[in-house]
Amino acid sequence: MRTVRELAGAAKTASRVLAQTGTNEKRRALCAIADALEAHKEEIFAANAQDLRAAEEGGMRPAMLDRLKLNEKRLVAAAEGVREISREADPVGCAEGTVLRPNGLRIEKRRVPLGVVGIIYEARPNVTVDAAALCLYAGNACVLRGGKEAIRTNTALMRVMRGALADAGLPEDAMTLCEDTSRESAGEMMAATGLLDVLIPRGGAGLIRSVVENARVPVIETGTGICHVYADAGCDWEMAVNIIRNAKCSRPSVCNAAEDFLVHASEAKKLLPRVWHALRPYGVEMRCDERAYAILDGMEGVVRAREEDFATEFSDYILAVKVVDSLDEAIEEIALHGTGHSECIVTESYARAAAFTERVDAAAVYVNASTRFTDGGEFGLGAEIGISTQKLHARGPMGAAALTSVKYVVSGSGQIRE
Amino acid sequence: MRTVRELAGAAKTASRVLAQTGTNEKRRALCAIADALEAHKEEIFAANAQDLRAAEEGGMRPAMLDRLKLNEKRLVAAAEGVREISREADPVGCAEGTVLRPNGLRIEKRRVPLGVVGIIYEARPNVTVDAAALCLYAGNACVLRGGKEAIRTNTALMRVMRGALADAGLPEDAMTLCEDTSRESAGEMMAATGLLDVLIPRGGAGLIRSVVENARVPVIETGTGICHVYADAGCDWEMAVNIIRNAKCSRPSVCNAAEDFLVHASEAKKLLPRVWHALRPYGVEMRCDERAYAILDGMEGVVRAREEDFATEFSDYILAVKVVDSLDEAIEEIALHGTGHSECIVTESYARAAAFTERVDAAAVYVNASTRFTDGGEFGLGAEIGISTQKLHARGPMGAAALTSVKYVVSGSGQIRE
Repeated sequence: MRTVRELAGAAKTASRVLAQTGTNEKRRALCAIADALEAHKEEIFAANAQDLRAAEEGGMRPAMLDRLKLNEKRLVAAAEGVREISREADPVGCAEGTVLRPNGLRIEKRRVPLGVVGIIYEARPNVTVDAAALCLYAGNACVLRGGKEAIRTNTALMRVMRGALADAGLPEDAMTLCEDTSRESAGEMMAATGLLDVLIPRGGAGLIRSVVENARVPVIETGTGICHVYADAGCDWEMAVNIIRNAKCSRPSVCNAAEDFLVHASEAKKLLPRVWHALRPYGVEMRCDERAYAILDGMEGVVRAREEDFATEFSDYILAVKVVDSLDEAIEEIALHGTGHSECIVTESYARAAAFTERVDAAAVYVNASTRFTDGGEFGLGAEIGISTQKLHARGPMGAAALTSVKYVVSGSGQIRE
Repeated sequence: MRTVRELAGAAKTASRVLAQTGTNEKRRALCAIADALEAHKEEIFAANAQDLRAAEEGGMRPAMLDRLKLNEKRLVAAAEGVREISREADPVGCAEGTVLRPNGLRIEKRRVPLGVVGIIYEARPNVTVDAAALCLYAGNACVLRGGKEAIRTNTALMRVMRGALADAGLPEDAMTLCEDTSRESAGEMMAATGLLDVLIPRGGAGLIRSVVENARVPVIETGTGICHVYADAGCDWEMAVNIIRNAKCSRPSVCNAAEDFLVHASEAKKLLPRVWHALRPYGVEMRCDERAYAILDGMEGVVRAREEDFATEFSDYILAVKVVDSLDEAIEEIALHGTGHSECIVTESYARAAAFTERVDAAAVYVNASTRFTDGGEFGLGAEIGISTQKLHARGPMGAAALTSVKYVVSGSGQIRE
C-alpha cells in the first residue's frame, strides 16, 4: 500500500504527461473508462456487495446504506456521466485574451491544468468515478481518498479505470486511490504541500470544517448550504408558494435546498397558510418565529422555532420560518445565517430585485426562481466537482474550468527591461 | 488598541458598504487619499524619522534602513501610484458572460469584491499605501499588519488615509492597521476564518513560508523567485547575453531577477566567456557546475557551485551556472529547482520555443525576453498587490481584478426545477 506522499508524488509525475495530452486523447481515454466500467460491472458489484455486507453488520443506517449501494442503474449512469464529460469543451490551452505590449512583447494568458487535485470524500462510490473523470479532462492527476465503508468498491472502480487509462496509453497514476482510510491518511493529504495543488473536501459539514481548519495545502470549501427564500412585500403568492415548495421539497438532502423561509409582514397572514397547505403533503415541519407562529398556531406540523433553527442546515423536511418588516431585515438575516450558497427573493419590485442581488453576498442570488438550480448542469457548465461556497479561485458550481489555472506565455524578440 | 478580530470585524462591516460603492466615489476617495498624503507629509516624515532612529539604535543594516526610509520622492511616488490606480478600469460589477438557459433563466456571472483582504508584510511603509489603495479600488476592506520597525510610519500613514476616507464619505474601517506587531497578532490573522476572505503575505521567504504553513484562512503565496534563463542550442549569443545581463543585473533584489543560467553544451564554450564579460562589470559571482567551471576556470569571480546553489534565491549579484545537454535536461532542472515564477528560453527554434512554453510550469514563461518583465505594470494589468506563485485563484502579477470574486445573478419568472 503506497503512502499519501508516494501516491501524490506519482500523481505529480503523471500530471506532467497529462498537461501535454491533447483533447482527443483525453476524450478517447474517458470513453475507454466508461466502456471498461460497464464491461467489468460484475467485479464492481461483487466488491460493492462486500462493502454493503460489512456496513450492514456494522449497523449502518438504511439511508447511508443506500448511498453506498452501486446497482446497475447507478453504474450505467456513472459511465454515461463520464461520456458526457468527454463531449464538453476542453478548457485547457485556450487563451483568455492576448495583449501586444508597446515594446512588442506578446503576452498570452493561457489556461493550464492545476496539476494534482486531492479529494477527500465519504461513502458515495460514484464520486470516485465522477471526480477522477472530471480531473482527467481538465488535465489533472488526482489522489482520491474515500470513506472506509466504500473501500472495496472504490478499489475495484479504480482498478478498472486505471486499466483503461493504461490501455489508452496514458499513465495509470493519473488516477490514484488512497487505500489507507485512516484518519492519519487524511491528515497526510492536508499536509502534502508541494505535491497537491488543491484539496477539495466533499461530504458532510464536519468533514469540510475539519479539512478547512487543518489543511496546509490550498482548499476549496464546498457544499454547505443554508439557503433562504424571501417573499417580498407585494410578491406573487402563487409564485412564492411554488418556489418554496420546490426549493424545500424537491430534494431536501442537497445543499441547494432551502432551509429558511422569510416573509414580509404585509404578506404573512395570507401567504403563510398557503405555504403550509403546499408543504403539508410532504410532511414538512415548519419551525416558526413568534409572529409566524401566531398566524399558523394550531396547524399540524407547526412548532415554535428555537434561535439555532435559523442557523441549521436541516437537509430534511424541516423549514424555519420568520416574518420580517423590510428587505433590509431579510438581507441582514441572510448575512447573519446564510452560508453564501444560494439565496432567493420573490418580488415584483425592480428596485428591490436589484438591491437584493447587489447586496446579498452569495455564490448564487436568485430573483423569482428556485434555489435548486445551483448546479453545474443547470448553469450550463457541464459536470461539476462541487459547489464552492468560498470566494477564492472558484465560486458556485465548479466545472472542468474551475480545475484549471493560467500561465502567461510571453513571446519576444530580445526585449530587456529598462 | 483593537484586537485583530475586532479590526477584521469592523473591516467586514465596512466591506459591505464598499461593495455598494460606485467607481466614481472610489476614484474620488483615492484622489483624496493621495492629496492628504502630500498635505500631511511633515507629520509622516516625523513619524518615519522616529522609526529610523529606533531602527538605527537597534543596529538595523543599511539596506534595511533604506527600505524603511520614506523621503519626499518616495511619498510623492506613493501618492501618484494611488492616483494611477484611480485611473484604471474598475473590475467590480462587470459581467463575464451571461447565458440564457433553455428554461428562460438568465444567468449572469458578475465580478464582486472578495470582502476583507489581510496583508502581512515587513518593513517597507509604501506597501501600506499601495495595498490599501488597491484593495479599496477592488471594493475590499483591508487589515494590514506591517513590521514593528515601521509601526510609527504606518500608523501616521493610516491616520491620514482614514481621515481622507471619512472626508470622502466612506467608512474609515475600510482601511485598518493592526498596531500590535507581535508574533501573536500575525497568528490571529492567520486564524481569522470567517472574517478575512484572503491573506496575502508580502516579504521574505521565511515570512511567506510561515503564513502558508500556519494559516487557516485562504492564502495567496507570492513572490518567491528562483528564475532561470536557458540559452538553447543555436541561440543568438548577443540576445542571450543581453537577456541574462538584464535578468540578473538590472535589479538583483527582486523576485523576477534570474538566479540560474542554463546553457546548452553546444554553445557553452563560446557563450559562457561572453556572459562572464557582460556580468563582470556588475561584480557578479558565477557559481559554476563542473563543465561550466572547466570553461571559465581562472576568471575572476568564478567559483565551483555547491548543489544547494541551484536551489537558492540569491537576490544578489550571484548567478548559478549549469551546462545541459538538451532541452529536456533544462526543463527538468527548472521543474526541480524553479519556484514557478518566471522562466526564459533564448532560442531560434520554433519547436523548442513551443515545447518550453508548453512544458515549463510557471506563472510566466518567456521566449527571447528578460524575466524582469513579470510585473503588473509591464503586463498591462496596472498596479499589483504581488506576484502569485501558486496556481489557485490567481497566478502571476495580481492587479485589482485578482482581488475580486464572482457571483451568479439568476433572473427568473417563477422557474422551479423538475
